[in-house]
Amino acid sequence: LSTHVVPHYLMGHAAPILYAAWAEAGFVKESDLLNLRKIDCELEGHPTPKLEFVDVATGSLGQGLGAACGMAYTGKHFDKSSYRVYCMMGDGECSEGSVWEAMAFASYYQLDNLVAIMDVNRLGQSEAAPLKHDMETYRKRCEGFGWNTYVVDGHDVEELCKAFWQAKQVKGKPTCIVAKTFKGKGLKNIEDLDNWHGKPIPKDRVGDVLKDLQAQIQVPNKSLSPEMPEDDTAPADLSPITLSSPPAYKIGDKMATRRAYGVALAKLGQSSKRVVALDGDTKNSTFSETFKKAFPERYIECFIAEQNMVGVAIGCATRDRTVSFASTFAAFFSRAYDQIRMGAISQSNVNLVGSHCGVSIGEDGPSQMALEDLAMFRAIPTCTVFYPSEAVSAERAIELAANTKGICFIRTSRPETAVLYSPDEKFEVGVAKVVRQSDKDHVTVVGAGITLHEALAAADMLASEGKNIRVIDPFTIKPLDASTILASARATGGKIITVEDHYKEGGLGEAVLSAVGEEPGIVVTRLAVSGVPRSGKPQELLDMFGISAKHIADAVRQTFAN
Amino acid sequence: LSTHVVPHYLMGHAAPILYAAWAEAGFVKESDLLNLRKIDCELEGHPTPKLEFVDVATGSLGQGLGAACGMAYTGKHFDKSSYRVYCMMGDGECSEGSVWEAMAFASYYQLDNLVAIMDVNRLGQSEAAPLKHDMETYRKRCEGFGWNTYVVDGHDVEELCKAFWQAKQVKGKPTCIVAKTFKGKGLKNIEDLDNWHGKPIPKDRVGDVLKDLQAQIQVPNKSLSPEMPEDDTAPADLSPITLSSPPAYKIGDKMATRRAYGVALAKLGQSSKRVVALDGDTKNSTFSETFKKAFPERYIECFIAEQNMVGVAIGCATRDRTVSFASTFAAFFSRAYDQIRMGAISQSNVNLVGSHCGVSIGEDGPSQMALEDLAMFRAIPTCTVFYPSEAVSAERAIELAANTKGICFIRTSRPETAVLYSPDEKFEVGVAKVVRQSDKDHVTVVGAGITLHEALAAADMLASEGKNIRVIDPFTIKPLDASTILASARATGGKIITVEDHYKEGGLGEAVLSAVGEEPGIVVTRLAVSGVPRSGKPQELLDMFGISAKHIADAVRQTFAN
Repeated sequence: LSTHVVPHYLMGHAAPILYAAWAEAGFVKESDLLNLRKIDCELEGHPTPKLEFVDVATGSLGQGLGAACGMAYTGKHFDKSSYRVYCMMGDGECSEGSVWEAMAFASYYQLDNLVAIMDVNRLGQSEAAPLKHDMETYRKRCEGFGWNTYVVDGHDVEELCKAFWQAKQVKGKPTCIVAKTFKGKGLKNIEDLDNWHGKPIPKDRVGDVLKDLQAQIQVPNKSLSPEMPEDDTAPADLSPITLSSPPAYKIGDKMATRRAYGVALAKLGQSSKRVVALDGDTKNSTFSETFKKAFPERYIECFIAEQNMVGVAIGCATRDRTVSFASTFAAFFSRAYDQIRMGAISQSNVNLVGSHCGVSIGEDGPSQMALEDLAMFRAIPTCTVFYPSEAVSAERAIELAANTKGICFIRTSRPETAVLYSPDEKFEVGVAKVVRQSDKDHVTVVGAGITLHEALAAADMLASEGKNIRVIDPFTIKPLDASTILASARATGGKIITVEDHYKEGGLGEAVLSAVGEEPGIVVTRLAVSGVPRSGKPQELLDMFGISAKHIADAVRQTFAN
Repeated sequence: LSTHVVPHYLMGHAAPILYAAWAEAGFVKESDLLNLRKIDCELEGHPTPKLEFVDVATGSLGQGLGAACGMAYTGKHFDKSSYRVYCMMGDGECSEGSVWEAMAFASYYQLDNLVAIMDVNRLGQSEAAPLKHDMETYRKRCEGFGWNTYVVDGHDVEELCKAFWQAKQVKGKPTCIVAKTFKGKGLKNIEDLDNWHGKPIPKDRVGDVLKDLQAQIQVPNKSLSPEMPEDDTAPADLSPITLSSPPAYKIGDKMATRRAYGVALAKLGQSSKRVVALDGDTKNSTFSETFKKAFPERYIECFIAEQNMVGVAIGCATRDRTVSFASTFAAFFSRAYDQIRMGAISQSNVNLVGSHCGVSIGEDGPSQMALEDLAMFRAIPTCTVFYPSEAVSAERAIELAANTKGICFIRTSRPETAVLYSPDEKFEVGVAKVVRQSDKDHVTVVGAGITLHEALAAADMLASEGKNIRVIDPFTIKPLDASTILASARATGGKIITVEDHYKEGGLGEAVLSAVGEEPGIVVTRLAVSGVPRSGKPQELLDMFGISAKHIADAVRQTFAN
């Protein structure tokens, strides 16, 4: 079809035909095909990047086109290479809104190196898809979303080849090939019928079906040998990327971690041409605009479509072509949780930066407050969760994330907070900092972000009463520095207080409980937000939801009383 | 505009104008308007149902139309009433795929009692929205998605009134009014300019701006007094709903909890006409099809669009009109996490049923396995999390959920498991069952779903070695029955083992840690899934990921060794 095919994507359900095609091409052993879905075979129920020819996992529907957009954008703008991206979709999954987010994105950015193939076979899992074989409505929708569109007979190879050729000639628009097909085409009493989704053909019918099929196969005159893709893509240098200059703050300076994110990302962009940024129309709040101002050609505005933004960021990061950072309010990553979940299965190295965490954002109210994001990201298996509390560590978190495999989440805060570390302080994933200690500390307090500063304020209040506490900045919530926390707890009579601008479930408190749960004699008191919060001033809300210095001091006094 | 307006929705950013309109109508005190966003005033930054005239919260974009679809579907099919639903949207939020899921839904179900108003003011938060003022592309997209569409001048009240009137005459199609507007219309040096998003007018300019505005106001001849809506909606009886017949299983019968869900829901449907079900083209896997077969007129097929499904279910449940249950694979609720999060802020009473949890689903592979769903739902503040382990408790979980306020999540499993309880066993939210005990138990094992059965198998293996264990079925993970678990732990030397078909973060293990974290002398060992799983047979996977009977028995033996 093309000498520049990068066959990235295939709807998950069709995995057996993908595997068979690779077997035909000599890349998968034919005998392995019979080990499909077995525990010792990489040919899984839905393809994953355990297979070298798979770049993103499938199986959750409607996610392919977003990733394909990221690959195509990278090909056109970052790799400046000739490869083309083909994305195969089922008709059922076109009900997913994420598909239409990607359709809008691809036409907005004129991704003429992208072809989507919609396999309209009419049948969903449990009944017909809503549009059935209404090809003209598919055409209208695709054209309305700005795509060059061909409606074809999906069983006519010549017609398909023509459409693929035509797509290559079109400039300034992505192409959608809407292919009318019949599920189980050519199989008697199966073709176009319900109730065959994901079901093998019964043993007693296999003989007849195979005979029928074999009779339909036209053996070509010569054996097919696909040409190797022509690869004009220069290698991408992703060697360790460092801040072009160290953090430039003095201890005590006031700086929001969200603002430090923008500064750090621009510095990384200075060091490496492969650093790219994405945002969902919140760049003036997340401060990704600092990067955009420095490197406009490496910033992708994704508008208000977080699912697609994460999909595009994952697509950009495939095959180690870029180091991508996508940002929005941390609360709105909940919109893309399925993409993030699948990102882990895809072995993606994407970096996600969520600002405006917790009640400390203030007046905008609960819809804008991330209070479940730590729970979300901690439960992603490949994820490193950074939660910097001030500007120096925020810059280092961004630098570390750029060089850390798997998904990285960096939680940033809206309020300005005091700088705590000197510019040359070293930070590592999984290594906490003890920010306040004496030789007679009564309890260990673990806070992060705004609550670390509240804990320090509480420490000052308590010190005047002659009560000393140890205060820990965990820096990363996953992995959590269990040994520092344990050692500190042991030094403070086994008593720990955690305080977090997050709901009580799945956040910092439970991470600490997890770290110490197998140790007898350690008691953890947790301060966290309960119930749905509301609008108000940040400090009023920290007070109302029991996570301010006053509440920390009270909790500490309580441990003296016991 | 209509005597049947149910003014449900308004894009969150426009909250002040909504409040002002209600003040004009005499429902909000004018003096309260100046307390906007203050901590002691219910006029929050984005409207929430703390205000009687708000049914669903706004603030996360693109969610209004899905809820409006649920309201309109309920009006037409369940209430069979004349009310009409109006949904106001911004142009920026039309980038959200959830909008297009809802657009497809509304036209598929011919919701001619639904009107969407797109306020196309061109400007997003940080730059222009992608389509700017390209009204014809908006029209094409809306028409492509099957809507009767009018493009109007949004500042021309007469034109708007005409469009609303016309919309009422149209049968079989929802209507979209695409209104071209200019942000800050009529304000000098503000109209149609960037950088005014969410910003008050500077104090030194307020005088001039107000003067200008006042000069433009045309005082009507008579004072406006909107007519009260004509209410022809019969009250909905949502008094406690019970299973029409008790669970009909014998102890030891084999039955999957997902299948028991369908049976129970059909029984609830028998008891109450207000019980409705929704699914996203997985009804033959989640077994919502059992309900559909019994009450097809109360089943809503939402196709593969989980965000919209949850939005519609929330819409159906507003104003206590229905008791709605929405089901899909538990993994795919991650697609709707933002809708679920907002559902809590909306004080929704929706019920969400997630099947196919964990590695025990087997061959379909990691994309289909829910392993983060407990973390997700535990972190939702109003959420009750049911995790029944067998069919009797599954039926009771569904019955309890129907009568429990807030969001309910019921986690069901794919494999068949043995019935453990007699049909007359009583279940309560937050009350665990001790399913195996003796007077010399060495350790407490907490399992749920498939792992409860693995724990029982381990208990049998260990009993033959003379090692007794106590086994607990928590029934609900949130709230968790802390007192039963604590009492049991104290009776077993402070030793607890948790075992869950879920990732280690945010699930059963951390829930148990949370319950016992403030108690000294209790040690919790956790068995859970680590890393991204793979395809394989269910039992092979339980073994590979360390949560099978064998691993539980090993963990128990370890506690004897210590």
